[in-house]
Amino acid sequence: MTAADETPGGDDTPWDEVVPEAARKLLVAAVEAFAERGYHATTTRDIAGRAGMSPAALYIHYKTKEELLHRISRIGHDKALEILQGAADSEGTAAERLAAAVRSFVRWHAGRHATARVVQYELDALGEEHRAEIMELRRKSDGVVRRILNEGVQAGEFDVPDVPGTTVAVLSLCIDVARWFNVEGRRTPDEVGVFYADLVLRMVGATK
Amino acid sequence: MTAADETPGGDDTPWDEVVPEAARKLLVAAVEAFAERGYHATTTRDIAGRAGMSPAALYIHYKTKEELLHRISRIGHDKALEILQGAADSEGTAAERLAAAVRSFVRWHAGRHATARVVQYELDALGEEHRAEIMELRRKSDGVVRRILNEGVQAGEFDVPDVPGTTVAVLSLCIDVARWFNVEGRRTPDEVGVFYADLVLRMVGATK
Repeated sequence: MTAADETPGGDDTPWDEVVPEAARKLLVAAVEAFAERGYHATTTRDIAGRAGMSPAALYIHYKTKEELLHRISRIGHDKALEILQGAADSEGTAAERLAAAVRSFVRWHAGRHATARVVQYELDALGEEHRAEIMELRRKSDGVVRRILNEGVQAGEFDVPDVPGTTVAVLSLCIDVARWFNVEGRRTPDEVGVFYADLVLRMVGATK
Repeated sequence: MTAADETPGGDDTPWDEVVPEAARKLLVAAVEAFAERGYHATTTRDIAGRAGMSPAALYIHYKTKEELLHRISRIGHDKALEILQGAADSEGTAAERLAAAVRSFVRWHAGRHATARVVQYELDALGEEHRAEIMELRRKSDGVVRRILNEGVQAGEFDVPDVPGTTVAVLSLCIDVARWFNVEGRRTPDEVGVFYADLVLRMVGATK
């Protein structure tokens, strides 16, 4: 499981926002190393080595290993929120918007599974302030999905007895795709997204 | 997140099958260390220290760190299969058996979340032979759920267009409880189990 396994999913130009090129290469190397061996087992020396640079060159761009993790986590969480927000704000019924949100959220977690694993599993390794910042982004993502569910219930489109609990379950189902998705498996990220959108519409009791 | 956070879930006497006492204490210490810092960042010295033993005392019970991971993974996977098999073989309709399977599988993943995380996230760290053995147990668990779904479809109880895909999704939804479950959250492992059983019956289009 390395970042090199990643296939384009919801995001065709990953890490393009990271400049200069050296900072971007180091970030990609960090994702690979964290995904393979875990954050705590990875040293900044490992990361620099993977990127073909010296530890001193790494230090120009990132003061600590935690800064690299925070940058990865921040970009990943910003992307997740952007995907969900885009779907929530689009035209259409609550069912159409929920299906769109699930399709792109799943596509991202399947296509960028190594990144998603680091983003999802290494939260405890973030420093206190960074962790609080990321938790706030997660609450926002949660709020976007909860809003679509509430709108669907109000419009009589959905039957959801427990909106907060169902929100957690919907996001959880999508996030766990990053754990099991296999690039050699029989489904593409797009196909999993379409299939999961249907499962989620069933979970919310969407009227067909 | 430590094994000490774990609350009794599907399993009231965790690790009781591991004897003697020293071997059990080392296993519990290994679960805690792997859950906190990851497998690769943990040394056998760390594990022995947590258990209040010397590295030499650890070596009497486990030749390698991988042997500890394998033992944890094997016990966890045996338990998962036992839970699912028990529900599948019980009396009742396919819907009743599926609900029972989800309830106990979720209860285990919530109640034993630190163990479940190690079991689910460190598969790649197992040696080749051990990994093959564990993958075989996973295929069996998968087969048990698939069988319930097929029986429900044949009995006209379920509407499932894609049984293998839905099997993966149902197990994935339950497994990911180990990632987000929080002992300080507003739901107990039992409550999450009951709620998830209802969500899964919706996913399979169970006739009420």
